[in-house]
Amino acid sequence: MNIRKLLLPLLLLLALPIHAEEACQPRGTGDLGIIIERETGSLQVVNTTQRKSLARLEGLGDLSHASAVFSRDARHAYIFGRDGGLTKVDVLCGKLVKRIMQGGNSIGGAISQDGSLIAVSNYEPGGVKIFSAEDLSLVADIPATPIAEGKNSKTVGLVDAPGQRFVFSLYDTGEIWLADLRQPDKPAIQKFTDIGVQPYDALITPDGRYYIAGLFGEDGLALLDLWHTDNKPQRILDHYGKGEEALPVYKMPHLEGWAVAGGRAFLPAVGHHEVLVADARDWQQQAKIKVHGQPVFVMARPDGRQLWVNFAFPDNDAIQVIDAETLQIIKTLKPGKGALHMEFTPRGEHVWVSVRDEDKVLVYDTETLEPLTELPVKKPSGIFFTSRAHQTGL
Amino acid sequence: MNIRKLLLPLLLLLALPIHAEEACQPRGTGDLGIIIERETGSLQVVNTTQRKSLARLEGLGDLSHASAVFSRDARHAYIFGRDGGLTKVDVLCGKLVKRIMQGGNSIGGAISQDGSLIAVSNYEPGGVKIFSAEDLSLVADIPATPIAEGKNSKTVGLVDAPGQRFVFSLYDTGEIWLADLRQPDKPAIQKFTDIGVQPYDALITPDGRYYIAGLFGEDGLALLDLWHTDNKPQRILDHYGKGEEALPVYKMPHLEGWAVAGGRAFLPAVGHHEVLVADARDWQQQAKIKVHGQPVFVMARPDGRQLWVNFAFPDNDAIQVIDAETLQIIKTLKPGKGALHMEFTPRGEHVWVSVRDEDKVLVYDTETLEPLTELPVKKPSGIFFTSRAHQTGL
Repeated sequence: MNIRKLLLPLLLLLALPIHAEEACQPRGTGDLGIIIERETGSLQVVNTTQRKSLARLEGLGDLSHASAVFSRDARHAYIFGRDGGLTKVDVLCGKLVKRIMQGGNSIGGAISQDGSLIAVSNYEPGGVKIFSAEDLSLVADIPATPIAEGKNSKTVGLVDAPGQRFVFSLYDTGEIWLADLRQPDKPAIQKFTDIGVQPYDALITPDGRYYIAGLFGEDGLALLDLWHTDNKPQRILDHYGKGEEALPVYKMPHLEGWAVAGGRAFLPAVGHHEVLVADARDWQQQAKIKVHGQPVFVMARPDGRQLWVNFAFPDNDAIQVIDAETLQIIKTLKPGKGALHMEFTPRGEHVWVSVRDEDKVLVYDTETLEPLTELPVKKPSGIFFTSRAHQTGL
Repeated sequence: MNIRKLLLPLLLLLALPIHAEEACQPRGTGDLGIIIERETGSLQVVNTTQRKSLARLEGLGDLSHASAVFSRDARHAYIFGRDGGLTKVDVLCGKLVKRIMQGGNSIGGAISQDGSLIAVSNYEPGGVKIFSAEDLSLVADIPATPIAEGKNSKTVGLVDAPGQRFVFSLYDTGEIWLADLRQPDKPAIQKFTDIGVQPYDALITPDGRYYIAGLFGEDGLALLDLWHTDNKPQRILDHYGKGEEALPVYKMPHLEGWAVAGGRAFLPAVGHHEVLVADARDWQQQAKIKVHGQPVFVMARPDGRQLWVNFAFPDNDAIQVIDAETLQIIKTLKPGKGALHMEFTPRGEHVWVSVRDEDKVLVYDTETLEPLTELPVKKPSGIFFTSRAHQTGL
């Protein structure tokens, strides 16, 4: 009897689960990330050590302006789609875990300090919903202030803050709300009213202390000190905004596009070809830097030595690198048309740049300022690395 | 013929690799860490989400004063033992990958910005050796300045800096060396001499800009600005040191025990029951905080809101928590005898505390300041979480 012939089918059968495991090997997740492909509702999982794509996932819905946060074990990404979709992706194994439609029109989300809760900000219906990070079940619903029959204010600028808190702004009613989720099913809300007209986006400083909301309806920004929530939000940078004699605004700068480096804040001047420099202690303006176009994102290399700036149409084929100390432009790069998103590796040696209109992502060496690698990606937009798991407000 | 009898040994054989795989499941590595067990040459692998121990590894040699760095994928730890041992541990699978004896008496190490190189600082023979992070093969040997026949200066205070550089100090000859490893086998060394008498330890600020060496032989510290390496190191905090009228120094404070929070530096006052506060812009002293004993580590909660301070013998059963803004002591905790090491979770909700003489690690909630979990650990010392993979100088 030929024992080999007898065993072959059995061996093949036994080989199957081993093969399945091979598709999801044990590996470190600290050097992984995702790139959003906005027009195809898909994303790529990438490895930042090998600088290559590991997997491609489809079926994530409308991903224009999509953003993502990561679980504290750096394995799962939570993707916030424009269509109200919330998708949990297993980045390690390259597969979709769960997808829910949680609202009609959403704009960003956040993960709680301890990683147990996912918050999503909604235009329609206006408010914030809180989900379990484990299974995406609804934990709490926080409707925003009513503005008409069956209609609540849009919520924007949602971020996480230390102490298991979330902070967000109410566009229609000019409020900032601070939600304490220490008892997840009973959110305690502190409301700050009259903070300014039409807050449209916000940021939290990397230490989680200051929440700053941009105002669409007037100049200046509203600053809430989370160490002193007995005080009302104060107005800062009174000349920041659409202003007089401004150029037409092609794209409102994202406030996540601010950078704080070396005790100074760098921010895009709305409607001007300028980056503003403010003292991060008293928020007084210190300088203006003339740049190539209307800045969208102003991002600091993680060591704070350089600022990388990209621009709105028609100048969105360029990126400028600024020395954070001398405030001089070191180099103007031309990655290609639609260079709209950048993400630094956690220790800053590389930056990944989405070049939307040329279906590619370029990886630059931040010291030589030369491209190292080009990856084919369909209409790439946001790039998010797993090291965000460990940072407040990202 | 009984086919089952024939197949059984084969099935068992085939089952082995499957079983081995089961011991090392795919999982995220962002919430893992290690705790050094100093007297038994062992360590425990822990999970900071579940707050439990996952594995225990032995055979790591002399681990007194051992420290660790992590690979950029947050999977492997490199452990620097006092006996010159360098051990690569697979934290994900809980196993020892490789162990070499690289020197006779070593004190700490670092990992390069890109994660490819491991540097180890040696007393004997005095100098720094550079190894491949992949297989621990020797890449470069940097002997320190000779001080006698066949003897070189001890090297201390080794850290990584942006730009694929390492910085370290020479104890016997009063130097700081800046090693550029962009060509790994041809280190380019810039030497700063006459920096002060007997530098004994050093730190690099979280942004990777300032390297600060403590001096054993005189008061004050030497500060090197890595953005301006044409300038000589300058002397700062001239009254910092053993000083006059000081108490006997029971334990030299580690300089990694400094904290920079909210634009201020907090440092242990050598030989005094005080924490010094300096302006992190000009390094001028601003205040002194009276504390329970001689401080060893002064650590900032990641959001900079609190400072946690532990103490040298005979006060090493206590930890004090200081408000970083008011500089008031909020609470004195008594975790137990030998409370010598602390590690914050990356977003600061918890801190893990080694209590050496009571064979336990306590996990505190940093908001309530109450202990949440107690883990049995044999003579615990350093605690290191994988999120360090993404931070310069850690």
